[in-house]
Amino acid sequence: MRVLGVDPGLTRCGVGVVEGVPGRPCTLVAYYVVQTDPGDELALRLLHLDRSLTDLVAEHRPDSVAVERVFSQHNVRTVMGTAQASGIAVLAGARAGLPVQTYTPSEVKAAVTGSGQADKAQMTAMVTRLLRLAEPPRPADAADALALAICHVWRGGTRSKLAAAADRVRRGGAR
Amino acid sequence: MRVLGVDPGLTRCGVGVVEGVPGRPCTLVAYYVVQTDPGDELALRLLHLDRSLTDLVAEHRPDSVAVERVFSQHNVRTVMGTAQASGIAVLAGARAGLPVQTYTPSEVKAAVTGSGQADKAQMTAMVTRLLRLAEPPRPADAADALALAICHVWRGGTRSKLAAAADRVRRGGAR
Repeated sequence: MRVLGVDPGLTRCGVGVVEGVPGRPCTLVAYYVVQTDPGDELALRLLHLDRSLTDLVAEHRPDSVAVERVFSQHNVRTVMGTAQASGIAVLAGARAGLPVQTYTPSEVKAAVTGSGQADKAQMTAMVTRLLRLAEPPRPADAADALALAICHVWRGGTRSKLAAAADRVRRGGAR
Repeated sequence: MRVLGVDPGLTRCGVGVVEGVPGRPCTLVAYYVVQTDPGDELALRLLHLDRSLTDLVAEHRPDSVAVERVFSQHNVRTVMGTAQASGIAVLAGARAGLPVQTYTPSEVKAAVTGSGQADKAQMTAMVTRLLRLAEPPRPADAADALALAICHVWRGGTRSKLAAAADRVRRGGAR
């Protein structure tokens, strides 16, 4: 199962692609940070983000997309841009016909580190270890996107197994 | 000059199209409210909104698009969906290669009623009179979208240049 995770942001948007199955270590496919210039007008920034995400989805052909859910408790100065970026990310997955799942930051932290209160350094360290990387992914936006993708593989896989089991039952098979 | 105005919302998104020149009464072309079901998943809702707005832009071929700017002071329960919808609206204009301008609610109110503090009823009454309609546009989301479009026709062109210049001064840049 290949998952593309997105840590949405208007100035810096993290994208991480991993492959794996629930309960086993995932493999890194690629990670990116899509950047837009805060000096450019909003329309250009959203257009650049849309094209970049659409291209990355087309290039990596994930089975599904995971996007961090944005709350109004986030940094108030940037929250509107973050929310708009998350909308563009969800749309990029949906337009490619892929299932899109959103996760809260604490769901991702809990899935990856075992604690919903983990800080950024713990998250980066855990992502580095889980993907058996020689160096921590930089910048942190990329680590967060990879964590989202890992979280979705581990939790999403369950749903796929259940779905597959349901399919087998429906087909009357017993594999 | 034909302008398509968008009052962004995830559950109800107002769209209004008018034609006119600065300082003269505008003419109504059409108005709509795009609705999505709060019970559907986010990806489907954003996809429906994107397709509807993209279709309306293609159908009406406006010269530019005006979108209401969303603030975190808006209704906290719905502000994230409103921000995501506004991102989709700005993107729909940008993907069609059109200039997209955002306006604050008080800019629109001031342009249309002369007062930045006008209430919804005053706005609807003024839009009805300005477009010489026999009946007020219903629902109010459509009236707000028409007000945005009128505001942009009257301020259009000039505003973007001034705003860009002001932005450059504020940033201290000289691009």
